[in-house]
Amino acid sequence: MTECFFSFKYENHKLIFLDQTKLPLEEVYIETDSYERLAEAIERLEVRGAPAIGIVAAYAISLGMENVKNNYEEEFNKIFNRLSITRPTAVNLFWALNRMKNKFLSIQENYYQVLLNEAIDIHNDDINKCELMARNGLQIFTKKSVVLTHCNSGKLATGGEGTALGLIKHAFKNDLISYVYADETRPLLQGLRLTAFELEKERIPFTVLADSMAAILIRDKKIDMVITGADRIAKNGDSANKIGTYNLAVLCKYHNIPFYIVAPTSTIDYNIENGKQIVIEERSKSEIISLHNIKVGSDSFNVFNPSFDVTPSELISGIITENGCCKFPYNFEEK
Amino acid sequence: MTECFFSFKYENHKLIFLDQTKLPLEEVYIETDSYERLAEAIERLEVRGAPAIGIVAAYAISLGMENVKNNYEEEFNKIFNRLSITRPTAVNLFWALNRMKNKFLSIQENYYQVLLNEAIDIHNDDINKCELMARNGLQIFTKKSVVLTHCNSGKLATGGEGTALGLIKHAFKNDLISYVYADETRPLLQGLRLTAFELEKERIPFTVLADSMAAILIRDKKIDMVITGADRIAKNGDSANKIGTYNLAVLCKYHNIPFYIVAPTSTIDYNIENGKQIVIEERSKSEIISLHNIKVGSDSFNVFNPSFDVTPSELISGIITENGCCKFPYNFEEK
Repeated sequence: MTECFFSFKYENHKLIFLDQTKLPLEEVYIETDSYERLAEAIERLEVRGAPAIGIVAAYAISLGMENVKNNYEEEFNKIFNRLSITRPTAVNLFWALNRMKNKFLSIQENYYQVLLNEAIDIHNDDINKCELMARNGLQIFTKKSVVLTHCNSGKLATGGEGTALGLIKHAFKNDLISYVYADETRPLLQGLRLTAFELEKERIPFTVLADSMAAILIRDKKIDMVITGADRIAKNGDSANKIGTYNLAVLCKYHNIPFYIVAPTSTIDYNIENGKQIVIEERSKSEIISLHNIKVGSDSFNVFNPSFDVTPSELISGIITENGCCKFPYNFEEK
Repeated sequence: MTECFFSFKYENHKLIFLDQTKLPLEEVYIETDSYERLAEAIERLEVRGAPAIGIVAAYAISLGMENVKNNYEEEFNKIFNRLSITRPTAVNLFWALNRMKNKFLSIQENYYQVLLNEAIDIHNDDINKCELMARNGLQIFTKKSVVLTHCNSGKLATGGEGTALGLIKHAFKNDLISYVYADETRPLLQGLRLTAFELEKERIPFTVLADSMAAILIRDKKIDMVITGADRIAKNGDSANKIGTYNLAVLCKYHNIPFYIVAPTSTIDYNIENGKQIVIEERSKSEIISLHNIKVGSDSFNVFNPSFDVTPSELISGIITENGCCKFPYNFEEK
């Protein structure tokens, strides 16, 4: 029996979310009906993960519209714009916000309830997509495997069971995975804090390692494949994901082991042909020089802190979506 | 004018060393005449770096023998054995200890002074070797370059100005380096804490990054070469160095940029043909799940924490020693 937790849920005119910055040592749930508080939660990474931030932003829009009594369009745009500037890289955020905007533009009354239903739809869609991705992904296993993953792409990152980590959990249940290695994922340690937390809850045996240690596991064939999520995928399959993913993809290529991405089609940006057009968020110096507010380096140091990198499609053995598993060369078309 | 600090020095029957675990935020010097305290300093990484721990261990032996009045051989062996078990990977430690043992076996009296002189000789040798390595290394620059380094291989790691970082500082003074990128070097952050500290003292412009970020700098040709030190080199050139070095060497190979190692010949282990025979130290789980005693992960997590990895010689563009710069294939012979 696995232990229960949830990443976020809508209940009684409020969103309740698990503050991911405090995991794994404390499980603190925060309740709010304020869209501003939810925007801050996304900015502070209390809620993170490409699909999750899209869904939470959708709920935030409906909650923000609940007490609006006039100037609906002006208020909607204010809320929409506030949520748009929380994070720049994950396309799911803009996909969800635009879905909410289209719904808003199609109605004249009962804004809160209609927008809430749309947010719930987006959430349910994601739960379904997670299930489909997990099912579609089983085909990549030709034997019981040891896998390595990077960052967190599980229940904490989505509305359902996860993208890459959702597949990993499903494959474990289907006896296709025996062991998981989780990169700690500097600087914010989503692997050490979040993926390890989820794997432990699921009673899946795992080991955490510093990111630079994956190279020798891959060299020594201690792992059979690498599986990660993605934050934005170009039409040609170039994929932005947590910083460190490109490094893993090169290691896999060099050592001839497969590298897979699992992401819903809402992660695909049909407006861009390739990864060169993906905006990469650079986050603050403090994420490198401090940890949990304890300063380790000096403020005077220059720091390079891109939050994502782009893996070119030719290094990706397969991209698994709710529609199936595609192989290189990729050519995603909007339906 | 650069600011002054020293890594360790012998003075008035004591060794004074800079506690590297407190850098860069505090510069705390510790004074001791106890070999046990010095053994602990090596174990706790208050003193670290392959050449530095060899020299400090040599001083520790002479200090340990100062008050011995009888049973010289028994006492010597006790001190020798205590220091031998402090760290397993760096061969310089055993090289220095054996040099001290040979000296001890050749004398019948005046142990403290003769052994102290031997330790001072080992120290001076290292200072000279650092100068020679820095001079020999200039030949690898065909233009003014941007370099990346990993871990710390400077004044804090040696008796002199450093191995890889010594060359970097010398090349900067000779206008052959314009900028330095320093990997933070998880888990113990020697790059963020120590290399950044040294570069700042030397007024060399630099940027610190998480280890997994180096991949995109290398891909984007933002750096011209990678230069690191080494902790043990086999006769065929296979080189053990701080965990993460093999990863960099693969990235350099894949992106076709040079990867160099700088180390004195005392780092070469003439007893081993290749890197497969190098013992890799695995350090404690707490280095991954805690930082500065603040717990981030859970004690229940399994952790993989090798302190070093081995880079095969075919990935190394050149190994610079006090004798010159060798190229693949390497065939080091004891003289």
